[in-house]
Amino acid sequence: MAKSKLYGKDLICTRDWSVEELNMALDLAVEMKKKRFSKDHRKILEGRTFLMFFYNPSVRTRQSFEAAATELGAHAQFLEPKSMRLKTSKSAGETIEDAARVMSRYGCGIGVRILEDKIDAYGDGDALLVEYAKYADVPIINMADDRFHPCQGLADVMGLRQHFGSSDLKGKKLLQIWSHGALARSWCSVQESLLINSRFGMDVTLAYPEGYDLDPEVVNQVRANCAKEGARFEIVHDAVAGYEGADVVYARNWMSSVAYDNGFDKQAEVEKALGFSKWICDEEKMEQTPNALFIHPMPVDRGNEVTDEVASGPRSIMYDVAENRLHVQKAVMALTMGE
Amino acid sequence: MAKSKLYGKDLICTRDWSVEELNMALDLAVEMKKKRFSKDHRKILEGRTFLMFFYNPSVRTRQSFEAAATELGAHAQFLEPKSMRLKTSKSAGETIEDAARVMSRYGCGIGVRILEDKIDAYGDGDALLVEYAKYADVPIINMADDRFHPCQGLADVMGLRQHFGSSDLKGKKLLQIWSHGALARSWCSVQESLLINSRFGMDVTLAYPEGYDLDPEVVNQVRANCAKEGARFEIVHDAVAGYEGADVVYARNWMSSVAYDNGFDKQAEVEKALGFSKWICDEEKMEQTPNALFIHPMPVDRGNEVTDEVASGPRSIMYDVAENRLHVQKAVMALTMGE
Amino acid sequence: MAKSKLYGKDLICTRDWSVEELNMALDLAVEMKKKRFSKDHRKILEGRTFLMFFYNPSVRTRQSFEAAATELGAHAQFLEPKSMRLKTSKSAGETIEDAARVMSRYGCGIGVRILEDKIDAYGDGDALLVEYAKYADVPIINMADDRFHPCQGLADVMGLRQHFGSSDLKGKKLLQIWSHGALARSWCSVQESLLINSRFGMDVTLAYPEGYDLDPEVVNQVRANCAKEGARFEIVHDAVAGYEGADVVYARNWMSSVAYDNGFDKQAEVEKALGFSKWICDEEKMEQTPNALFIHPMPVDRGNEVTDEVASGPRSIMYDVAENRLHVQKAVMALTMGE
Repeated sequence: MAKSKLYGKDLICTRDWSVEELNMALDLAVEMKKKRFSKDHRKILEGRTFLMFFYNPSVRTRQSFEAAATELGAHAQFLEPKSMRLKTSKSAGETIEDAARVMSRYGCGIGVRILEDKIDAYGDGDALLVEYAKYADVPIINMADDRFHPCQGLADVMGLRQHFGSSDLKGKKLLQIWSHGALARSWCSVQESLLINSRFGMDVTLAYPEGYDLDPEVVNQVRANCAKEGARFEIVHDAVAGYEGADVVYARNWMSSVAYDNGFDKQAEVEKALGFSKWICDEEKMEQTPNALFIHPMPVDRGNEVTDEVASGPRSIMYDVAENRLHVQKAVMALTMGE
Repeated sequence: MAKSKLYGKDLICTRDWSVEELNMALDLAVEMKKKRFSKDHRKILEGRTFLMFFYNPSVRTRQSFEAAATELGAHAQFLEPKSMRLKTSKSAGETIEDAARVMSRYGCGIGVRILEDKIDAYGDGDALLVEYAKYADVPIINMADDRFHPCQGLADVMGLRQHFGSSDLKGKKLLQIWSHGALARSWCSVQESLLINSRFGMDVTLAYPEGYDLDPEVVNQVRANCAKEGARFEIVHDAVAGYEGADVVYARNWMSSVAYDNGFDKQAEVEKALGFSKWICDEEKMEQTPNALFIHPMPVDRGNEVTDEVASGPRSIMYDVAENRLHVQKAVMALTMGE
Repeated sequence: MAKSKLYGKDLICTRDWSVEELNMALDLAVEMKKKRFSKDHRKILEGRTFLMFFYNPSVRTRQSFEAAATELGAHAQFLEPKSMRLKTSKSAGETIEDAARVMSRYGCGIGVRILEDKIDAYGDGDALLVEYAKYADVPIINMADDRFHPCQGLADVMGLRQHFGSSDLKGKKLLQIWSHGALARSWCSVQESLLINSRFGMDVTLAYPEGYDLDPEVVNQVRANCAKEGARFEIVHDAVAGYEGADVVYARNWMSSVAYDNGFDKQAEVEKALGFSKWICDEEKMEQTPNALFIHPMPVDRGNEVTDEVASGPRSIMYDVAENRLHVQKAVMALTMGE
């Protein structure tokens, strides 16, 4: 594989890439899925090191990135910054500049995951990635921050295309709906889904209870994306209405906009007390749709976000989407790091 | 290597495999030891990912499994479930079903280690492995649970065959004897030794102080195995008697049957107070045998389980057995995961 | 690559190797830097396992050793002995003898890092490495202990040679100067720098405040090295004087000789209270030199040890030295472990 035109590019949010660039990654992911374990893929990053920084733990993201590196012939180092003394406003240590410059000498790319309890205020995690990107000479790949989760967004689109049997998502309706969760979840997967699917022309209904507004800057961009594509965009505060006509139901908890102030654990308790269980995605609601696909970034909170019937039902594509994480990440790494 | 007839098979206990199947693994292990670092071996799982779940830490098991994967061309991911939010009766998280189904998309096999303080009651660890096996589409390999430790059992047999210079263990006498340990040890290695060696026709003397009964279901099976093979089986509560005529002495601490109730640390204190030091395997006792081999799964508690003289003596095969862990695990992975 | 005459050799301190042997490693490092990612390098340790024991965490050392293994075709296992029950005077567990003997069956080499809060008294860390080396059949590589840091020393020399454009350092003047740090640092990098550079014929000025004496045994050897090479050696307790005529300024914090008694955190507070900030390496002091290179083992404490102006200035070679860690470690591993 020769260097692609994406060589050296960061991936912090899918909106930083053009639709054409996203399609390059998605097309390569499909090809890599077909020819999995091909010897040619193992030559792409042979002998290279991908540095993964997990400020927050994660099983699926770690497994899929580490496997992606392996299948490209590289080795992914699993690094937990608890063992790294970084300089912050509160503590002595190394600057991001120094860390990023040195890591650029060792690795072909750097993945970073930081969100929830590891940051002080919404936006800090994403800002850290931007700072890494400023100083690193190699691509910074977002493995989920408090705002965005680009590889999840790409995996979602790949899954929808697979199951609709077409790469054209125009005119399909996405219901992006909040549901109660026992663990308060970050906004990143949901915001990335809205951002990428609106660019591919989907109609979007965003449904959530009062008090669960997402990032207004992101929502405004989604609205603008829909307008540009001639697609519909609406926000409803109703647990059922949005199901009508939905081709895709993406039911997922997210924390309220005051969660960073109140604490994440408290957040889940508050939800429970408020009786938010009526927002669960169940068979009855799914019957309102023209046989919609159920999609979820996992881990799924069965019994809270969605019933077992739906999650394990024939229209659930969540395992395929989870698998796609591997394929899209391989494609992104190959395109941005392969020489 | 073409797919073996063991392809796709779990290994939770050696008793789940036929003697013929166990011999396939043992024979391949011997061959792999001879041709260590052969290029052919690295093709067997080239570019594949083996997922290792260490609920309990372990150095030897981790080192040997991770090296086994490397020597087969694969990469083993070292995963600690503390960083994984699994659903339990007490906490929110992901179900084993969801975890196992997704991991089957990323890895060619899943290893799990769970015992001692990570479980509530004897049997829970083994039950967790059975549940993983129910949902995973790839082999589940037991890296030690509270009941069984199949790779240790295979390494033991490989070591005995090496040092007896014959694959036929029939008529040889195994003394499986308890000894005091500063750390209370799980039953898994001992029970696996009894199960596998009785199937290969060894006479078995099981010796331990009152109150240290092993799992009755396992002991009954060992008794039945011996009966079927026409071998002797006896239980004695004596620290010396069993040495007579023993060809193999396997002296190892195990926790009492009430350790799960009383706590593991307390257990060791109790032993010490009770003066269980007379059970130590020493030169004097070894002299009762016709030059028996000393075998131990390690880590060995020198001065409690066994004296330095015996552990480091010419008849100790514990380092070879430790090395065999690597070889048998390579063989098991190659046979169950190689395509 | 055929077995080198360094095959099987430990590297605990550069003084254990002859100048000729050090030059073998340095020359190979230069060649490996030139041909980075060459297929030939990946054959050197193909399929082998390098076992890394991090008693203390480290980012740079871990990244560079793990990447070194990858680029040589090997796999480095990242092991934290918190998960290893070693026998100590205070706790039950496995002896170093048993651990080392078994690891020699799995790996082609063992790296160990132990210093600061993980030891009781100065020298204990280095003694542990010596004990590992006594029992292991494979090379023990020091990844930094309380006394020495040989790979840092090699990386320093490689960096100086690069930037002076000559492998001959004779007659160049090294200012090894203490500076205040927000985190108390071990003596290992500084002592290794003094030991190796004095053997390559550099004039050495060692500058530090009263109470910050280094290991007298090491300082005596440095003095002897200089005498043997006909080079100057002096100790000054002055923050400025040593800059005059310096070709290399190595400004780095180290803990006082009573830090092990007082605690590491307290140490840094004491320094701050004492107003040790005048020791900072800044532009004004650097102007006293004939355009000296600035060198540092990183992580660098900007604003305490050195100003941003100097650390990020045109004469700072710290990033190149950090990169060199990778190259010299590859060379050391290839020479001592490659067959």
